[in-house]
Amino acid sequence: LGPEPQTVSIIGAGIAEGQPKPGVEKGPQAMRDAGVIDRIKEIGWQVNDCGDVHYEHVADDTPSQGGAKKPRTVGNASRILHETALREARAKRFVLTIGGDHCIAIGSISALLTARPDMCVIWVDAHADINNEDTSTSGNIHGMPVGFLMKLVNSENVPGFGFLKDTPTLKPDRIVYVGLRDIDAGERMALKQLGILAFDMHAVDKFGIGKVMEMALDHVNPYKKRPIHLSFDIDAMDPTLAPSTGTPVLGGLTFRESAFLCETVAETGMCTSMDIVEVNPTIDPDAAYQTVSIGSRLVACALGETIL
Amino acid sequence: LGPEPQTVSIIGAGIAEGQPKPGVEKGPQAMRDAGVIDRIKEIGWQVNDCGDVHYEHVADDTPSQGGAKKPRTVGNASRILHETALREARAKRFVLTIGGDHCIAIGSISALLTARPDMCVIWVDAHADINNEDTSTSGNIHGMPVGFLMKLVNSENVPGFGFLKDTPTLKPDRIVYVGLRDIDAGERMALKQLGILAFDMHAVDKFGIGKVMEMALDHVNPYKKRPIHLSFDIDAMDPTLAPSTGTPVLGGLTFRESAFLCETVAETGMCTSMDIVEVNPTIDPDAAYQTVSIGSRLVACALGETIL
Amino acid sequence: LGPEPQTVSIIGAGIAEGQPKPGVEKGPQAMRDAGVIDRIKEIGWQVNDCGDVHYEHVADDTPSQGGAKKPRTVGNASRILHETALREARAKRFVLTIGGDHCIAIGSISALLTARPDMCVIWVDAHADINNEDTSTSGNIHGMPVGFLMKLVNSENVPGFGFLKDTPTLKPDRIVYVGLRDIDAGERMALKQLGILAFDMHAVDKFGIGKVMEMALDHVNPYKKRPIHLSFDIDAMDPTLAPSTGTPVLGGLTFRESAFLCETVAETGMCTSMDIVEVNPTIDPDAAYQTVSIGSRLVACALGETIL
Ligand SMILES: [Mn+2]
Ligand SMILES: [Mn+2]
Ligand SMILES: [Mn+2]
Ligand SMILES: [Mn+2]
Ligand SMILES: [Mn+2]
Ligand SMILES: [Mn+2]
Repeated sequence: LGPEPQTVSIIGAGIAEGQPKPGVEKGPQAMRDAGVIDRIKEIGWQVNDCGDVHYEHVADDTPSQGGAKKPRTVGNASRILHETALREARAKRFVLTIGGDHCIAIGSISALLTARPDMCVIWVDAHADINNEDTSTSGNIHGMPVGFLMKLVNSENVPGFGFLKDTPTLKPDRIVYVGLRDIDAGERMALKQLGILAFDMHAVDKFGIGKVMEMALDHVNPYKKRPIHLSFDIDAMDPTLAPSTGTPVLGGLTFRESAFLCETVAETGMCTSMDIVEVNPTIDPDAAYQTVSIGSRLVACALGETIL
Repeated sequence: LGPEPQTVSIIGAGIAEGQPKPGVEKGPQAMRDAGVIDRIKEIGWQVNDCGDVHYEHVADDTPSQGGAKKPRTVGNASRILHETALREARAKRFVLTIGGDHCIAIGSISALLTARPDMCVIWVDAHADINNEDTSTSGNIHGMPVGFLMKLVNSENVPGFGFLKDTPTLKPDRIVYVGLRDIDAGERMALKQLGILAFDMHAVDKFGIGKVMEMALDHVNPYKKRPIHLSFDIDAMDPTLAPSTGTPVLGGLTFRESAFLCETVAETGMCTSMDIVEVNPTIDPDAAYQTVSIGSRLVACALGETIL
Repeated sequence: LGPEPQTVSIIGAGIAEGQPKPGVEKGPQAMRDAGVIDRIKEIGWQVNDCGDVHYEHVADDTPSQGGAKKPRTVGNASRILHETALREARAKRFVLTIGGDHCIAIGSISALLTARPDMCVIWVDAHADINNEDTSTSGNIHGMPVGFLMKLVNSENVPGFGFLKDTPTLKPDRIVYVGLRDIDAGERMALKQLGILAFDMHAVDKFGIGKVMEMALDHVNPYKKRPIHLSFDIDAMDPTLAPSTGTPVLGGLTFRESAFLCETVAETGMCTSMDIVEVNPTIDPDAAYQTVSIGSRLVACALGETIL
């Protein structure tokens, strides 16, 4: 990051076409309404609100040959997000991308890896999101961002994703998962074959979140020299706590574990970007406020807010 | 177990006379309706559904001299369950007994110990179920299965339980408890005098479930050679999570700890039988589906289902 | 404590003027109604119920020059409580003070430190309660008890608190916090400057409650010779579990952690007094019974009730 005072660039990326449920496009506004910007300022950051990514909802956006749904819309939006994130990263800002569904990580991480080639990724999610067009049973791109970033998906065959051709490939040893508990068969195989380190909920229970984060950080950042990107899917949390999300799965992280995780990443002093995704305020509206506030709190924790 | 492919024999044991509340006899059907059989098949097991234990509801089934209630009904049913479980264990199957109240463990464990004399038991429960006729204040046999199996109850004095005369005695060093939090005074004394290792909720909080399971398995299965029977009373879980049960107690295992426990037992490769008991779908019907699905999930975990 | 049989002296201290919300004065009666006395007797203690502290609600009780609200009322009540607690402590009783808001700790701890000068304090709370008149933004005395006890507040300038002049000062190394998660800026600085050990929720998640209690006890009681006072603010618990309290904060202790904490303090054999505070049965009346019962249970745990 740049010299003091440091700046957070906020990019609203309400891209919702990576999955079928309406509402997740309202995530950025809901997070702004919940006061996330003031909260970030209170910790001592300057804030540069880049506004929202505007993109075309392509008509007749038929699936790719491989079955990826809404490829032109998502690809086009990803490219615009990529360009914005790249500009902000090159200006040495902390880049905070607020989704939208998890497809947005294609645009954000491809840009951040371009600006910060040594970067590593902590992916917090109930899901591995590492499908490709062959292994995906749904065709939803929000289940494929890691697949795209690792180039397990051949983006030349997916209309709209040509911009990925010249971006760096995310390497298997530069990503670690925390919170997994719902994995497709093809994803399980990919994780194994690529030797990707993943801490599922069994591991969180076995070791405790303290030890898990220690091992996760040691793995992706052994010499503590790499910038860290935190990609936080709110469905990593238990659905009793963050119910306003599209694909909830029983047995998730507690609020305390989630906050701890973000605090621990912040404590490294190396966290330079974050996605917060899959907050869908229209699912379970009674619980939307709770979910959105927790999302804001997690962002603040990742940016250095602490209790003591 | 036998050569591949391995088989799970499912025995429906909807015996409800070990306690006073109606409804727990519906446990086996509810678990079947929740798809437990398909779930087991998906993990790669063959399934041999032995159907339900049919038994006589003896009229005028007055308490034993010692005060055990419905002794002839429960004893008769236990003998039939014993015979079925013994046959399936001798056929080298994984024996899954679905209760019913916890009295069913008398029939299942006495049979499994006969077929597999080296077997050890992991008893997961809010309660110790080690009363005898003297210490029990209620006379409910579901509070005495460990008492019967350890022959702290003289079964010759309890009408219907004559079949236990020639079955092996469960030894105090072959059982370990996890999850205890509601113990009768007489039970407390029995645990102490017999030197039975018990991890109550205080211990789970002190050490964490990871370390507790390590210590529990080291204790009952130090050389990792003994077959393991898992007797899982759903009331071990916190009542906020599994409310459809007859004797809920505050402060229980979380879903994650319960799944972790079953996964850890499965990981040993030595688990050859399981009881799942005290799922009563008529208590708190709104929560019945949740309780039953969790029960099915725990069975799947104990049979080797994993996240990764 | 004295020779067997040991006695618990119960002091009802329904002082509510340390904060603005009515209802917390009903805490002592609610705890008595929930059967706390019988529960204590069942563990084997004799009980000496000292009844309630009667005090004057001073008319025209204008704030102190420094801004502390209702100083004469709270100060007067604190002095009466101090005298009662001192008498009971000198009679070698376990002194259980039932609040009331947390201002009551001024009276109880100042008395107990007088009778037991080596005493150390475990303060379990979402809040640090270490404000002085300058740092407090609300002027509520329930946010200042540690400030008064450490003499960060000059009690000579606060009408009603003259009695503190001759009481011992609580030293920074004789108190440890557990459960913190909502700290004012001035409090954060005080904790730092005074070098007070505090385990916030981040620490509880990092180390687990087992290790936290080990470190907390080692710190305040390294040679295991000091009497221990446990000051338990019910808002240390998560508000989903103990909602009937005036200043709830997300992300608190679970029931199991809270019970574990109290059990662990009891296990030292050195716990000789306790406050239980901020149970307000008129907030969220549907949840009052739950909150009050948990309060009673925590008292029992701190007095030696165990599962096994
Ligand atoms: Mn995701
Ligand atoms: Mn997800
Ligand atoms: Mn049981
Ligand atoms: Mn039970
Ligand atoms: Mn307090
Ligand atoms: Mn408090």
